[in-house]
Amino acid sequence: MMDIVSTDDIRSAGPLPHAQSVTFDGPIPLELGAELPGVTCAYETWGTLNADSSNAVLVCHAISGDSHVARHDQNDDPGWWEYLIGPGKAIDTDRLFVVCPNVLGGCRGTTGPGEIDPKSGRPYGAEFPRITIGDMVSVQKRLAEHLGITRWRAIVGGSLGGHQAMTWVARYPKSTDLCVIIASSPRLTNQALGFDVIARNAIQTDPYYAGGQYYDQPQRPDTGLAIARMLGHITYLSSEVMEEKFDPDRHDPRQIASIFEQRFSIGSYLAHQGQKFTTRFDANSYLSISMAMDLFDLGTNRLQLMERFDEADCEFLLVSFSSDWLFTPAQSREIVNALTALDKPVTYAEITSPRGHDSFLIPDDIEQYAPLVQARLEDHCNEPVKLSAVEQLILELITPEASVLDLGCGDGNLLSALRSRGNEKIVGVEVAQANILHAAARGLRVIDYDLNHGLPAFIDGQFDFVVLSATLQAVANVEQLFHEMLRVGRKVIVSFPNFAYRALREDYVARGRSPKAPGEFSHEWYNTPNRRFPSIADVHDLCREKGIVMQREIYFDSETQAQISPDDDPNLNADTAILVLARNG
Amino acid sequence: MMDIVSTDDIRSAGPLPHAQSVTFDGPIPLELGAELPGVTCAYETWGTLNADSSNAVLVCHAISGDSHVARHDQNDDPGWWEYLIGPGKAIDTDRLFVVCPNVLGGCRGTTGPGEIDPKSGRPYGAEFPRITIGDMVSVQKRLAEHLGITRWRAIVGGSLGGHQAMTWVARYPKSTDLCVIIASSPRLTNQALGFDVIARNAIQTDPYYAGGQYYDQPQRPDTGLAIARMLGHITYLSSEVMEEKFDPDRHDPRQIASIFEQRFSIGSYLAHQGQKFTTRFDANSYLSISMAMDLFDLGTNRLQLMERFDEADCEFLLVSFSSDWLFTPAQSREIVNALTALDKPVTYAEITSPRGHDSFLIPDDIEQYAPLVQARLEDHCNEPVKLSAVEQLILELITPEASVLDLGCGDGNLLSALRSRGNEKIVGVEVAQANILHAAARGLRVIDYDLNHGLPAFIDGQFDFVVLSATLQAVANVEQLFHEMLRVGRKVIVSFPNFAYRALREDYVARGRSPKAPGEFSHEWYNTPNRRFPSIADVHDLCREKGIVMQREIYFDSETQAQISPDDDPNLNADTAILVLARNG
Repeated sequence: MMDIVSTDDIRSAGPLPHAQSVTFDGPIPLELGAELPGVTCAYETWGTLNADSSNAVLVCHAISGDSHVARHDQNDDPGWWEYLIGPGKAIDTDRLFVVCPNVLGGCRGTTGPGEIDPKSGRPYGAEFPRITIGDMVSVQKRLAEHLGITRWRAIVGGSLGGHQAMTWVARYPKSTDLCVIIASSPRLTNQALGFDVIARNAIQTDPYYAGGQYYDQPQRPDTGLAIARMLGHITYLSSEVMEEKFDPDRHDPRQIASIFEQRFSIGSYLAHQGQKFTTRFDANSYLSISMAMDLFDLGTNRLQLMERFDEADCEFLLVSFSSDWLFTPAQSREIVNALTALDKPVTYAEITSPRGHDSFLIPDDIEQYAPLVQARLEDHCNEPVKLSAVEQLILELITPEASVLDLGCGDGNLLSALRSRGNEKIVGVEVAQANILHAAARGLRVIDYDLNHGLPAFIDGQFDFVVLSATLQAVANVEQLFHEMLRVGRKVIVSFPNFAYRALREDYVARGRSPKAPGEFSHEWYNTPNRRFPSIADVHDLCREKGIVMQREIYFDSETQAQISPDDDPNLNADTAILVLARNG
Repeated sequence: MMDIVSTDDIRSAGPLPHAQSVTFDGPIPLELGAELPGVTCAYETWGTLNADSSNAVLVCHAISGDSHVARHDQNDDPGWWEYLIGPGKAIDTDRLFVVCPNVLGGCRGTTGPGEIDPKSGRPYGAEFPRITIGDMVSVQKRLAEHLGITRWRAIVGGSLGGHQAMTWVARYPKSTDLCVIIASSPRLTNQALGFDVIARNAIQTDPYYAGGQYYDQPQRPDTGLAIARMLGHITYLSSEVMEEKFDPDRHDPRQIASIFEQRFSIGSYLAHQGQKFTTRFDANSYLSISMAMDLFDLGTNRLQLMERFDEADCEFLLVSFSSDWLFTPAQSREIVNALTALDKPVTYAEITSPRGHDSFLIPDDIEQYAPLVQARLEDHCNEPVKLSAVEQLILELITPEASVLDLGCGDGNLLSALRSRGNEKIVGVEVAQANILHAAARGLRVIDYDLNHGLPAFIDGQFDFVVLSATLQAVANVEQLFHEMLRVGRKVIVSFPNFAYRALREDYVARGRSPKAPGEFSHEWYNTPNRRFPSIADVHDLCREKGIVMQREIYFDSETQAQISPDDDPNLNADTAILVLARNG
């Protein structure tokens, strides 16, 4: 078996050009019981820490990442989150002081298996103690103290970086104003564990692994490490994007020098990626960090997750990607649901992208979520708000102290007006991605969620008002949603178009055709997005049947812009109803 | 590095107890240009070939399968498709003569890399020529001739077995009455290719692989082969079923003797599976068969697929599984669409299962699809058919010679009546799984398909009649479907409930409530599955607007069971309309 890279290349792993470092004397206790005699932490910084140390942002990197998250000047190499971080960017280094440390266990200057063990005088190798994400975070905590930072403006991480960010908040609940968790999860799926197990087996059964003490050998376990990296690469991409990338030249692989099979285009890509990785990464570091990820586990159910975040004193922003099958949107949602049930301020968007887990590093996708990060790091924008007459009537029903959950909040018009008016705890739920991104970029708290699944993330009586404005006609499971709204809100405000409005009835009876009218009923029968067509009387009937109390009724005729009295047959004369509902008793 | 099994265990690979074999003298030319000096084919059989050799079924196995598809007697080991094949089962060995050969390239008695190369006097090893699925099928064709079978009653295969079945039909279009393709695909995805490339790299970089000539060595490339098998196992399961299987004892792995990591339950499972595999499989066979699968490619688009099957003279049954991400339902659908466009008789069901690719071997899932296989192997069942009055009226509109496509065919009631009446080319499309399985088990040709995607699989003017009976009210994209029906059918029969029926209008006007009536409109506004509520006049308007000719109008009042004359205001007096439509000109 031939080597695929020279050992000279391998030596290029080590501290990065712009890295600073600090050494903490030991013994440093580790979470699983062992200790390290001391720890060196390598890190890079951008921008300037302000006088009260309130503008510091911690960026946590993923398994094969490092401290070089952005360039330091125009001559510098671009960083791995170049599109997110820099002067004038979403994480604006003109205003913020950004810190990115290399993780414990890695091979870029922070203590790891390739560093010399002072006890033996040779590299730790496989003797490097088993570490956890918690241990990585402990080192970062020491670094924060060293830098004079007691509370971060934000902690931001993707993938393994997200695990670190969550561990920070779980361990040190008052350590940050904002926690940004991108493409991450509360724990690995068993499928992801399986891939990691295979990757580690490939490294450890490589004959050049030599029990982990290969540093003074002429050959290293490059074949095993390359196979591990190849496998990682498949899990970072989606099947869809692999077709796009590799099918056009499926049988026409790149010609590269490699011991690996290159019959197919995907084969030469994987061989190239695997091989390249061995020139910049240490196999023992891969084993160490990969095992730390596998051991990361915030809990298997919502209650366990809630315990972890119970004390958290920060805002949360979570972003997932539709085609990410390594850290799935469903896993991000588990975190969102736990935070929601804890009444923590959380914004969540699932970005539609074909690019799999790698999306979080890809410019096109960063462009989607960067404004959400930026909005949470800046003062609320004050985009002017223009309310419709019906929205204005709803606004007036809500007191300025009240908490509000707006279901189907659209781009956040009503929420923006509530915020301007002084309401503090206001949350939106929305399913259309453009609306979610718009509302979140306005600095509103909005959760990507389909109402047709009920409101399981929310707890009983969590809001003073739950609002369902101009959304009822699109709801599939109406009974469930009414039940859920009345469970979560002390009062429920429902506005909906009245299908028994005079003009519609006349249309139907006189012309024998499916009714049409301006506004919500302006579509043709064959292309309306609406699927529910209740009259005011229908909704009254449903409330009566379900024992729902109607506390307030407002009826409105859009044509005349006038309110219709409840005594003036609103079922005939109003085109819109606004009802304030509550549970019986 | 220690060995995980003794070489004695490995020697257990070889012909199976019940296998017979036949040797064909060479030279045997191979598809990629090389030749073999001769080929031995090992196979098993069940049942008795009848006098005219018309009851023979060929079963093709998957990558790690073999000829032992079912037990031969009560003392025998169960076979890998035991639930599908045997006396009285779906593939009934009381009636049928079943043949299952081991594939070329394998290690169970049919010629493969572990057999002695007569030229060198030692095993072929890596010198075994590269083979294709076509070469496997060529050997099976020789076997058929040897057995005196000129046309199979059926060729049945899952996964790689499906590739063989398709290759049979593509190469020898008149070789079978029926082709059953389970959990297969026209080619591997690039993702699947990537996994195979990694698996082969793991074997070939194992130091004991020794360039493929390890047969006389004390150690074999068991580590590489085990890693390949571990990887395979992840791709055979879904993430969902892995959670179910491995999460309950995630941190409590089985204790097994293995060099592989066993920290997690999934780790010990994979280690056990990987290790076990090395005792029954030869690494060179794995390389040979896996490469043949990767090279299998019926084409990248429908036209290429259509060319392959153009001459096919058989019925097709395809089954896929919802959670199969190795050979996805979308890939089965590519084959179905090509066959549909060729006007070949094809039935297709996507079984909802959480069990991934492995579903095709699992009793619970076999139970779902076995009746479909059985129905295609038996005479049509003659379940009595009871038609509604409206269905009877539709039946009468269709001549006994006409070809019919029934969209939203339900459990196949109208199709059964058409079949009894003598119509031959009748096809159903349905989206509800219970209905698909019921209709297919009745021996009807039904395709699992959502009408909201249009009818891209069907070609222009493919049917005399396209029927949309009592389905319009559930269609999201009505305009597209009308366009598509008139493209595919020379005539289109649409029956639908009339929303402007007198009783409904009265309800609406007098009571101001969303109309309700017996039948299709009996649901409440808040839980109706219907999403379109046209009147007869509405559909007339649409036809006028789109230039659709109304060739025939039948109106019906279910209450009085009487037809309503077109002159007698059917929009008021009929609750159901049946329209015969055609394109203008």
